[in-house]
Amino acid sequence: MAAVFNVEAAAADTNKPEPLVIQEQGSFAVGGKETIAPGTFNPRKPMEAAGQTYNGDHLYAFFQIPVNPRKYPIVMWHGAGQFSKSWETTADGREGFQNIFLRRKFSTYLIDQPRRGNAGRSMVETTVKPTPDEQMWFNQFRVGIWPMYFDGVQFDRSPETLNQFFRSMTPSTGPFDMNVVSDGVSALFDKIGPGILFTHSQGGGPGWLTAIKNPSVKAIVSFEPGSSFIFPDGEVPAPIPSAFDTVQGISVPMEQFMALTRIPILVFYGDNIPDKPTDMPAQDSWRARLEMARKWRDVVNKHGGDVTVVHLPEIGIKGNTHFAFSDLNNVQIADLVSKYLADKHLD
Amino acid sequence: MAAVFNVEAAAADTNKPEPLVIQEQGSFAVGGKETIAPGTFNPRKPMEAAGQTYNGDHLYAFFQIPVNPRKYPIVMWHGAGQFSKSWETTADGREGFQNIFLRRKFSTYLIDQPRRGNAGRSMVETTVKPTPDEQMWFNQFRVGIWPMYFDGVQFDRSPETLNQFFRSMTPSTGPFDMNVVSDGVSALFDKIGPGILFTHSQGGGPGWLTAIKNPSVKAIVSFEPGSSFIFPDGEVPAPIPSAFDTVQGISVPMEQFMALTRIPILVFYGDNIPDKPTDMPAQDSWRARLEMARKWRDVVNKHGGDVTVVHLPEIGIKGNTHFAFSDLNNVQIADLVSKYLADKHLD
Repeated sequence: MAAVFNVEAAAADTNKPEPLVIQEQGSFAVGGKETIAPGTFNPRKPMEAAGQTYNGDHLYAFFQIPVNPRKYPIVMWHGAGQFSKSWETTADGREGFQNIFLRRKFSTYLIDQPRRGNAGRSMVETTVKPTPDEQMWFNQFRVGIWPMYFDGVQFDRSPETLNQFFRSMTPSTGPFDMNVVSDGVSALFDKIGPGILFTHSQGGGPGWLTAIKNPSVKAIVSFEPGSSFIFPDGEVPAPIPSAFDTVQGISVPMEQFMALTRIPILVFYGDNIPDKPTDMPAQDSWRARLEMARKWRDVVNKHGGDVTVVHLPEIGIKGNTHFAFSDLNNVQIADLVSKYLADKHLD
Repeated sequence: MAAVFNVEAAAADTNKPEPLVIQEQGSFAVGGKETIAPGTFNPRKPMEAAGQTYNGDHLYAFFQIPVNPRKYPIVMWHGAGQFSKSWETTADGREGFQNIFLRRKFSTYLIDQPRRGNAGRSMVETTVKPTPDEQMWFNQFRVGIWPMYFDGVQFDRSPETLNQFFRSMTPSTGPFDMNVVSDGVSALFDKIGPGILFTHSQGGGPGWLTAIKNPSVKAIVSFEPGSSFIFPDGEVPAPIPSAFDTVQGISVPMEQFMALTRIPILVFYGDNIPDKPTDMPAQDSWRARLEMARKWRDVVNKHGGDVTVVHLPEIGIKGNTHFAFSDLNNVQIADLVSKYLADKHLD
């Protein structure tokens, strides 16, 4: 992007990026449920639950609106184990999609889904365990096969980058529930009106569900959606086994499914996904997911939809991990997204 | 504040506040610990902990640096049950201290302490329970005595404000530990250098500890610090019982304590704190805390310190809750803070 803003104060210093000019920023909770304990609240016994309420399962959003924003805001939704940070500063300290798309004059809404991060007040009791699991994630996120990095991977190799990457996770404070999280995001779209939804990984499945629930979702850009692809009743493909798990489509009535045919959908998958089955769980899980994504694309498009699946290496873009939006080439990825939104008249 | 920024793009629209002009913004983790499970990681058995690492107990910070910032950034630290949202949009939708102090050209660092919100990856297993407790908080935060609001309270009475207020809480994902959280904030000051620390409530006690640990804490503005006031060995006052709990000073060696005498410290308490003991736990807890705060002020100042305790009703400012920085008169409170920082040559 060329310079978008014209701020005199910054003009003298040519070494710094242009400042962000933000008309409005803030945060709020939206959606969720409330319970009340039986009995009457006694202010002299405040530690007793009687008569007290509990609000939870809401979504938390931090938004920024640039001066003269484009017509549709972008809602950015994290994946499993992640939170809004996915879209903020990258692990190696560069600008993420939050800043990149603000510079391109989109309003941004970064969310923590219900039961995650700043939306941690869950309606369901949960035990959070410090289980060592980071080498699993290193592999699952296709940075490499621990302790080796993939040749040419778009991921900085300094120890501090890996430290930031691992610390960009935060636990669920309640069970993952497709309906609870998509209800939260749908409530957000009710509040903000028409917009574009970016999803990542586990957010992919409930992202499709959000579009089914809410016509204010005008487009979806999904980075490596996980296993929960949504098909019409009777058209769910055979499950695809992998060395990690079995990828299985979800079935909904045709009238619900048809919502997915009415919006443009762009899906990205990165590099180091094998073509054929392998006994390495991390790689094989993505082989199966990409295969299911293509089957899903074909079914949606057969019913009049507009789904594009981009396997980045096929268009000559190599080395991307599970996090193309924060990889070393994330500006190039953002350019692909911008071009798509322009082509679809969504900017 | 008069207009600070001069942005042509906004000049035409006089109905909106001035845009925020942000030179840089982003987020990172800092501090924390790492463990490794015994054994060797097997990529074919990724769900087994053997040989895997776990990083946790770090702090999460979201920062914004305005164009031409003042010399010291402000670190804003939440209280019990709260997270960085304390300083963002108020429950009734106005600007909080994040935006107010950005407009006054301070860099801001909003944090989630280790084991809270976006810094949820705790080193200690914890069960998070959805316990109905909001009427307790309504009282403890001195909005009123449920379901009545205090006369003249600086808190909007619409149902949606209360909804946002209750949903601005998020659970701890590990036990509260003064040392763990102050280590996190001290690591932040190591990274960013000299700055001003704002604390709230339970953040007050570990805030004093952070200043003891790290000379880069150049001043503290503390909103209603809780019970953990730090005294030198042999000078801890008698515990102060209340209808809620007993407020007890913490003892440290004199050489550690002396760090608190070397920086200016401003402490605020709001309204509806009784002068004399009462059987209402919420009110009485603050009566005891304010009493201990004054004893602590006297000890710090006796040793050459510079602590000011402002009980807001005494200077004619009425109706403040436990959250003066987000109350209806929060710009007036910010003005008091700005004047203090100017008087102490900290701006």
